[in-house]
Amino acid sequence: MNPIQLKQFIREVLNEDIGAGDLTTEAIVPSGHKSTCLIIAKQAGVIAGLPVAELVFKELDESCRLTPLVDEGAEVAKGTQIARVSGPTRAILTGERVALNLMQRMSGIATLTRQLVKKLEGLDCRVLDTRKTTPGLRQLEKYAVRVGGGTNHRFGLSHGVMLKDNHIAMAGSLKKAVELVRQRVGHMVQVEVEADTLEQVKEILQLDVDAILLDNMDVETMREAVRLIDGKVWTEASGGITPETIRTIAETGVNAVSLGWITHSATALDISLDFEHETGDESC
Amino acid sequence: MNPIQLKQFIREVLNEDIGAGDLTTEAIVPSGHKSTCLIIAKQAGVIAGLPVAELVFKELDESCRLTPLVDEGAEVAKGTQIARVSGPTRAILTGERVALNLMQRMSGIATLTRQLVKKLEGLDCRVLDTRKTTPGLRQLEKYAVRVGGGTNHRFGLSHGVMLKDNHIAMAGSLKKAVELVRQRVGHMVQVEVEADTLEQVKEILQLDVDAILLDNMDVETMREAVRLIDGKVWTEASGGITPETIRTIAETGVNAVSLGWITHSATALDISLDFEHETGDESC
Amino acid sequence: MNPIQLKQFIREVLNEDIGAGDLTTEAIVPSGHKSTCLIIAKQAGVIAGLPVAELVFKELDESCRLTPLVDEGAEVAKGTQIARVSGPTRAILTGERVALNLMQRMSGIATLTRQLVKKLEGLDCRVLDTRKTTPGLRQLEKYAVRVGGGTNHRFGLSHGVMLKDNHIAMAGSLKKAVELVRQRVGHMVQVEVEADTLEQVKEILQLDVDAILLDNMDVETMREAVRLIDGKVWTEASGGITPETIRTIAETGVNAVSLGWITHSATALDISLDFEHETGDESC
Amino acid sequence: MNPIQLKQFIREVLNEDIGAGDLTTEAIVPSGHKSTCLIIAKQAGVIAGLPVAELVFKELDESCRLTPLVDEGAEVAKGTQIARVSGPTRAILTGERVALNLMQRMSGIATLTRQLVKKLEGLDCRVLDTRKTTPGLRQLEKYAVRVGGGTNHRFGLSHGVMLKDNHIAMAGSLKKAVELVRQRVGHMVQVEVEADTLEQVKEILQLDVDAILLDNMDVETMREAVRLIDGKVWTEASGGITPETIRTIAETGVNAVSLGWITHSATALDISLDFEHETGDESC
Amino acid sequence: MNPIQLKQFIREVLNEDIGAGDLTTEAIVPSGHKSTCLIIAKQAGVIAGLPVAELVFKELDESCRLTPLVDEGAEVAKGTQIARVSGPTRAILTGERVALNLMQRMSGIATLTRQLVKKLEGLDCRVLDTRKTTPGLRQLEKYAVRVGGGTNHRFGLSHGVMLKDNHIAMAGSLKKAVELVRQRVGHMVQVEVEADTLEQVKEILQLDVDAILLDNMDVETMREAVRLIDGKVWTEASGGITPETIRTIAETGVNAVSLGWITHSATALDISLDFEHETGDESC
Amino acid sequence: MNPIQLKQFIREVLNEDIGAGDLTTEAIVPSGHKSTCLIIAKQAGVIAGLPVAELVFKELDESCRLTPLVDEGAEVAKGTQIARVSGPTRAILTGERVALNLMQRMSGIATLTRQLVKKLEGLDCRVLDTRKTTPGLRQLEKYAVRVGGGTNHRFGLSHGVMLKDNHIAMAGSLKKAVELVRQRVGHMVQVEVEADTLEQVKEILQLDVDAILLDNMDVETMREAVRLIDGKVWTEASGGITPETIRTIAETGVNAVSLGWITHSATALDISLDFEHETGDESC
Repeated sequence: MNPIQLKQFIREVLNEDIGAGDLTTEAIVPSGHKSTCLIIAKQAGVIAGLPVAELVFKELDESCRLTPLVDEGAEVAKGTQIARVSGPTRAILTGERVALNLMQRMSGIATLTRQLVKKLEGLDCRVLDTRKTTPGLRQLEKYAVRVGGGTNHRFGLSHGVMLKDNHIAMAGSLKKAVELVRQRVGHMVQVEVEADTLEQVKEILQLDVDAILLDNMDVETMREAVRLIDGKVWTEASGGITPETIRTIAETGVNAVSLGWITHSATALDISLDFEHETGDESC
Repeated sequence: MNPIQLKQFIREVLNEDIGAGDLTTEAIVPSGHKSTCLIIAKQAGVIAGLPVAELVFKELDESCRLTPLVDEGAEVAKGTQIARVSGPTRAILTGERVALNLMQRMSGIATLTRQLVKKLEGLDCRVLDTRKTTPGLRQLEKYAVRVGGGTNHRFGLSHGVMLKDNHIAMAGSLKKAVELVRQRVGHMVQVEVEADTLEQVKEILQLDVDAILLDNMDVETMREAVRLIDGKVWTEASGGITPETIRTIAETGVNAVSLGWITHSATALDISLDFEHETGDESC
Repeated sequence: MNPIQLKQFIREVLNEDIGAGDLTTEAIVPSGHKSTCLIIAKQAGVIAGLPVAELVFKELDESCRLTPLVDEGAEVAKGTQIARVSGPTRAILTGERVALNLMQRMSGIATLTRQLVKKLEGLDCRVLDTRKTTPGLRQLEKYAVRVGGGTNHRFGLSHGVMLKDNHIAMAGSLKKAVELVRQRVGHMVQVEVEADTLEQVKEILQLDVDAILLDNMDVETMREAVRLIDGKVWTEASGGITPETIRTIAETGVNAVSLGWITHSATALDISLDFEHETGDESC
Repeated sequence: MNPIQLKQFIREVLNEDIGAGDLTTEAIVPSGHKSTCLIIAKQAGVIAGLPVAELVFKELDESCRLTPLVDEGAEVAKGTQIARVSGPTRAILTGERVALNLMQRMSGIATLTRQLVKKLEGLDCRVLDTRKTTPGLRQLEKYAVRVGGGTNHRFGLSHGVMLKDNHIAMAGSLKKAVELVRQRVGHMVQVEVEADTLEQVKEILQLDVDAILLDNMDVETMREAVRLIDGKVWTEASGGITPETIRTIAETGVNAVSLGWITHSATALDISLDFEHETGDESC
Repeated sequence: MNPIQLKQFIREVLNEDIGAGDLTTEAIVPSGHKSTCLIIAKQAGVIAGLPVAELVFKELDESCRLTPLVDEGAEVAKGTQIARVSGPTRAILTGERVALNLMQRMSGIATLTRQLVKKLEGLDCRVLDTRKTTPGLRQLEKYAVRVGGGTNHRFGLSHGVMLKDNHIAMAGSLKKAVELVRQRVGHMVQVEVEADTLEQVKEILQLDVDAILLDNMDVETMREAVRLIDGKVWTEASGGITPETIRTIAETGVNAVSLGWITHSATALDISLDFEHETGDESC
Repeated sequence: MNPIQLKQFIREVLNEDIGAGDLTTEAIVPSGHKSTCLIIAKQAGVIAGLPVAELVFKELDESCRLTPLVDEGAEVAKGTQIARVSGPTRAILTGERVALNLMQRMSGIATLTRQLVKKLEGLDCRVLDTRKTTPGLRQLEKYAVRVGGGTNHRFGLSHGVMLKDNHIAMAGSLKKAVELVRQRVGHMVQVEVEADTLEQVKEILQLDVDAILLDNMDVETMREAVRLIDGKVWTEASGGITPETIRTIAETGVNAVSLGWITHSATALDISLDFEHETGDESC
């Protein structure tokens, strides 16, 4: 992750929540008061976002400290204490919701990714994300996929070429489309093409292409496609893959499966922040 | 929604995806080429975000137009054409993913909200969102809740006072906490207090408070709480409410139920953009 | 106040003054030189803005320190030393004007507010500000009103509903206007209506409204309005209130008086920064 | 004024007021409704800020139009219609307060400046502003001074050198200070020095200096200073000048008088916006 | 190029030059005056930046128009009219310097690139840029390289992996370094490794690497390296390549040569803007 | 330089290079690893930008330290170690390219300026820059000119008036143009006029002007111009000045020569960053 963009993002989302000021905290918490709190998983899952949560609190007050009690990426049971946060009580209470909103979303994605990765155990097939991420959170969500054990597809439109139906139609032919993009890009940019049929796969294999996305093929067709491709280019299965079908699809021999829903439809992992009542005068 | 912040947000999320340029589109689509496309629901649901999608395309090229084919908030069947987009093909292809990512998320939230609102039909009980929204998307997600028929809880930390356990502990007593916030805020700010037990409800009723959040109470207790409160303050049920339990809880007589998961764990509604092959030379 | 927005604001206003660099200070002050200075009230008044001034200097050099010599909100005599600033001389000289411009304006507002609050001593009537603040300085000016002993009206257009003539005309009737806003907003948003006549007051009392603004009424009418309202909704007097009339108006029994001019026409309190010649080599 | 910075400023101050959305207007005004309104001076004065007000409305909706009914800088009587605004009713109502807050402040400064300029009629002496402007509004306030007939002193710290006591102390001597700044700056930067006594004036005249600020001198001393200077450098009187003393001070022969309070303590000119009820269906 | 980032960049660089306002133009040019001007090459070269120059003028006034008189990328003789600009005179005069500064730099880079590309005529060897671009101008400079006929190396640190000595040292071995990056990145990211010797080349060929940068090798060694690599991975020559040596190096059979100095040390192409005196009243 | 704008600029240019993250460094360098590196001049020249390079590393990790081994502005031989950088290895490797790109450009400009300044040794004639700087880098490039021993012309369009042909044509006459700008600006703004002929010089001398730019005159004419002007206004020679002609031109007696190419066409000074292998475990 880009540390400078990350800080800028955190400032923006804190401003979204704080607006003209945290009325409740300002009224009740004296500015010098300090506390220690615990972040606790209320649900079993994979933890992601501990360094992000720390930055949230530090952005509000640089004297805040977050001490992880489990590793980033750890699988934890319900009730596990995952981090201790200490610092000015105002900063902790004002930042709590933003920190948890981020961790819950990131941990939800990491948890879902880990489940899918485990289903492919023993196979040489990666779990990929897509560009179907929440706008504004792509770095965080792609990081969460990595924490879960998945691999990132291209980050964005400048990080690789993906030729779909409409691009090919615009160019007149797949051959022409590949020529046009090869002229535009250098050797550090990969070119991937979407294929729906075996005929398209055959056509693609004649061209200077680095990867094929096998889109919405049934398992038989996909197996045949992999046989045809025979390792000449990288292969990715996509479209309508579910936890139930993922292993069968991977067993066709594709190099990876990609799933939009590990980012756009992951549900939040329940995480909370509680005061740790132990430090006498200093705690609340 | 704030139209200026909305445009700024759209610029940021387009930059996130486009980065140093849309390599594929730049290489293949001539800069003067124009197209007409259709946005189609691939799944039944409630549509939200049509004006937002239009802004995405307009931000890339101000000559783009989006014509809604259904109303914002309409319940549509799978396969329904929901909008036509026309304009420079480059702008449409480059903006497609961001526009869909936003609409899919917003429509997912609107769809879920509508389902819950329908379960309360005939009851005088509102469905409320919370501050558990995706960081950076609060205005969009709270708007989607309204499109679905729900009502917004406070927008952020400066839009109302919510007293929870830790604030009360900090102040020394609930009475003191209420006094402190009343000194700080004026008559346009509402004060709500969280209650876990009937004893707390009784204590709160002695104080200058506008609303009570009945947190994680069982149905019996909640019914008794509503009887005690007797319309003196606004009541809101919260904590662990599911589609199965929502009506029973609402029947206790609370004014509203609030649910974090209608924003943090809504799944995306599947929506796609396709070229409409009808305008000869101008379409792709 | 929102600490993150406050820092961003201070960076912007420092840039406004510094532009391409402080030519005088760069030329004359060696970069390692340090000084101690005093901030002095050149006029009697209420001091507001000490934490803001500190942030100005810290933004230029994080090693700067401001030690308050009086409390925020203190009433000081002409000539009072109100704070000591120490740190790199360049940061102090470059930041001086911005720090003083902010403190002078904030202290001017706090001083004026305090004078009005004192006129209402013994009455249960608050002094309110309005949205007639200097664009860009609303958080600072509303904070200064609180320091002076006043209370804030709604922060902005998303922090409450205020129905004026034109809104009512647009809706067709006051009844319809109230219904429309009640549908739009939840229980954390207050609804206030402007009334010019006793007839309007009566009409408003039939509706689901939280507060009435009694606009430009003479004292007799206002007294009658308060009698009619009888504590059913919050009451606020507004329009043409002067230091001479404020107590008479408050004595009608309204809950508050609001005044645009405590922010838009407050005059600056004269404050200066001088070197404290005591530390030998280190001072200038 | 810089048109790009001006638009950025207007977006920021609109965001400050609108926040998460204009609840009242969104609820009541249909998005297609249009209106025509009048901006009216409720007080006699000099009008400044018409082009700025137009930009406020245009920023909210580019179809808004503001037609000035008087010239920028006109002296108007109480009740004068100064501009007509037409466009979407939502944009007009949402932008009203920001537009008026800006115009009221700018017109207040222009009015005050004009009064002072008139007092110097027949004398060759300019009325100057200072850097004691409201942070964030310097371009607007200095523009208002020009509209009022005044002249701008340096815009900021990079637009000229001003040597004060502390700089001279830092350098060791005035001579050394002048040498240091002359090395740092080129021929497009003017160097002005503050003088409190005739001795200082004499010393300054020996050096390569462009202007002298005669600070807080009594009229006799100032007259003598002007005699000594004899047109060799530009002269500016400053410090404690009031509407009563300004002409006497100008008559000493100084080239200009400068006054911090024409910006920091100008009071707002009362200006309002009303609907013009004439266009039937389209008006409110 | 990303059109949204490009506009943001242009606003920033216009602000840099305009600051608090274009004093000369504001004073002399009436706001309604319009003109037509010509942009002229004062030196032979390759023109790049016409669309960028248009955006500069449009950002100041959206009614400005730039009509290219030659194609982007055209080789022009000294004195060639390359574009006509028409619009408000204020916008043209205020934007002139920024527009020319950008075009001069971009055309300088395009001109230099074209010269090098021509030297390789008939060879299958590309001219590549590097990340040694002017900070803030990378998109513009890499675009200029493409206009000149060159090809872009990776855009930035997230657009590909480049393993240099220090990375390899950190990892312990090249093998380990390649393993670590392969775990981190997906199939859309290319991995390139720097080699100084034939031994390193041999080692690299054993690993999962996409490209080799042959750094500062003499021509003999480079030829041998190309023979060893034998098309198994992409090859790039780098380090100390001059216009004199570029063809000899390319003839070793490398796929590309990369040169930092086509961006960091290109000299500006002399371009000016003049008024076209033909439209009577409308021209100046 | 403005320290706040400088930090903002550095954040922007780091984001340009880092984008979605430094893939190579993230994969290979453990987050806790620290190193010490040396910045080395690979070419003889004048060093500029050491404080800027330090800010680059500190922006990525505030624990980074840069210790200069030569003074800013020092003339160094090829191979000279110019600074030591220590801190987290990730920050050093990620920031390296941006830090070097800035230092190389700044040192290139300083080196070129120093060469020209030396050619004028013994003459009372300054070397001036222009507004022909790289957009976005004006503060840095003008600072580099000062480091090289040159002097800055006006910073931008708000820092002085420069009347050229087109302005004069717009005003109708030079006399009118001077009157218009004198009305607009105060005493802190200098007015310079461009002259191509001796007739223009004579006309200018009748007017209230501070400086004359003698544009593209041959040496004879320029000598005569200087004689005519006789010290009444500041004189600046401009246009087509080369290292070969600069001394001859300066000997005409002008106060300064200005050259666009010391900023727009300076070539980069070659500078590199290497690991210093001495600290065992901690170094790479």
